[in-house]
Amino acid sequence: MQFNVTIDIMPLKALLDPQGKAVTSSMKNINIDNIENVRIGKHITMTVEAKDENEARLSVEKACKELLYNPIMESFEINVLK
Amino acid sequence: MQFNVTIDIMPLKALLDPQGKAVTSSMKNINIDNIENVRIGKHITMTVEAKDENEARLSVEKACKELLYNPIMESFEINVLK
Repeated sequence: MQFNVTIDIMPLKALLDPQGKAVTSSMKNINIDNIENVRIGKHITMTVEAKDENEARLSVEKACKELLYNPIMESFEINVLK
Repeated sequence: MQFNVTIDIMPLKALLDPQGKAVTSSMKNINIDNIENVRIGKHITMTVEAKDENEARLSVEKACKELLYNPIMESFEINVLK
């Protein structure tokens, strides 16, 4: 079966996110004053060929740990869609 | 009320995504051969102060159009969480 999988990789809450901070400030300059705490990470989509949802999730977890995310600075969240 | 809002900004389907292509190839090198069509975009989270969900969505849409996304190369999707 083929699964569509998304991964969200975000900077850890405990760390500064300078890109997010810059965007938060820029909001004020374009007169948007009700948006705060902007944080910017990566959204990754892919298709995974697997027997079941669990196998798909395991493959993507392996890819995250060995290739996609930096455990010192980031956390990741996997969503398996049908 | 305060809303948590996420935006996913992805390269348009019709365009090449060189970063995604590079990651797809790298998957083979670490012996993951069931993952294809990797595409990489941005995941942005923020808090929005607004009367209701609709007002929150409108603010974020304005931020996307004036600051965050490039309509020539990207599409965006807004999710308002409670």
